[in-house]
Amino acid sequence: MDIATANAMTYQEFMDTFGNVVEKCPLITAAVWSKRPFDNFLQLENSVFDFIDALPTSGKQGVLRCHPDLAGRELLSGTLTAESRREQHQAGLTSLKPEERQELSQLNSSYKDKFGFPFVICAKMSEKGKILQQISERVQNSPQQELCQGIEEVKKICHLRLQDIRSLATPTSSLATPTKL
Amino acid sequence: MDIATANAMTYQEFMDTFGNVVEKCPLITAAVWSKRPFDNFLQLENSVFDFIDALPTSGKQGVLRCHPDLAGRELLSGTLTAESRREQHQAGLTSLKPEERQELSQLNSSYKDKFGFPFVICAKMSEKGKILQQISERVQNSPQQELCQGIEEVKKICHLRLQDIRSLATPTSSLATPTKL
Repeated sequence: MDIATANAMTYQEFMDTFGNVVEKCPLITAAVWSKRPFDNFLQLENSVFDFIDALPTSGKQGVLRCHPDLAGRELLSGTLTAESRREQHQAGLTSLKPEERQELSQLNSSYKDKFGFPFVICAKMSEKGKILQQISERVQNSPQQELCQGIEEVKKICHLRLQDIRSLATPTSSLATPTKL
Repeated sequence: MDIATANAMTYQEFMDTFGNVVEKCPLITAAVWSKRPFDNFLQLENSVFDFIDALPTSGKQGVLRCHPDLAGRELLSGTLTAESRREQHQAGLTSLKPEERQELSQLNSSYKDKFGFPFVICAKMSEKGKILQQISERVQNSPQQELCQGIEEVKKICHLRLQDIRSLATPTSSLATPTKL
């Protein structure tokens, strides 16, 4: 997909395509619609990031809370969003041994008890061993550090989701000329 | 329900109960979770309103865009949220004559073309004749006026949804002593 295609979308098409670039926060995509037309995908991405950065602390915590637990209840019950399911699968979290799931579940609980929001990591860029190590380390951080770190991870996830949207829906005609992000 | 019950909820219970007090904006409820415990329901409501008021213009426009058209596509296809369906039904919008639906649809389109967000009105407090009159009048307003008016309607809707939640789930023990909002 090139940026002209995104700019030409109706509101409904735009939401159907970009509505979950930040997990379960369609409000952000609905707000970013105000910023069209975009010169390129980087500008669209930065509009999302600017919106998140301008949120008060409670709003940033809210964004983190909209994310599911890794290998948690929603994965087990099959209620993850398509994007989260794909990401958790790619990180190896859909094939954990029982003792690994147990360890991750306990670390997740400790993390949520301490910070009041779930552990968020760009799972697609990690793998299960690294995730367990990261959560063990990050649970030691201060609330302010983890708020910043969590939001950075949200942005990495958003960046990869936008990349996926662009590559999945690239019309044949634009395959020959890679579009600048 | 009294405020102690709301304060004692897990995050998941809180989201299941209050997640749609602002239509399709669970992020707002997830953010307001940071403000617990609440002294009373008025404080909870004001936390929602404070969050909306602090949004940039694009964010307020985004909140309005998360609302469905009145008597629109989602009503016809049965995909409205439970709250919206109830509200549109109570306003008489589920039993419009074909010519009334046609008129409302045309006014809605004009409104969205002009402002870039749908016409939002606290339908439960209106009825179909008044709604048609209101949209005919409000489409004449400036974008800034309509942004403010639309957000005021969002707040009225939120207030009534909170009232419904409190009355629907009141435990027997608190029926005798009306809880202060």
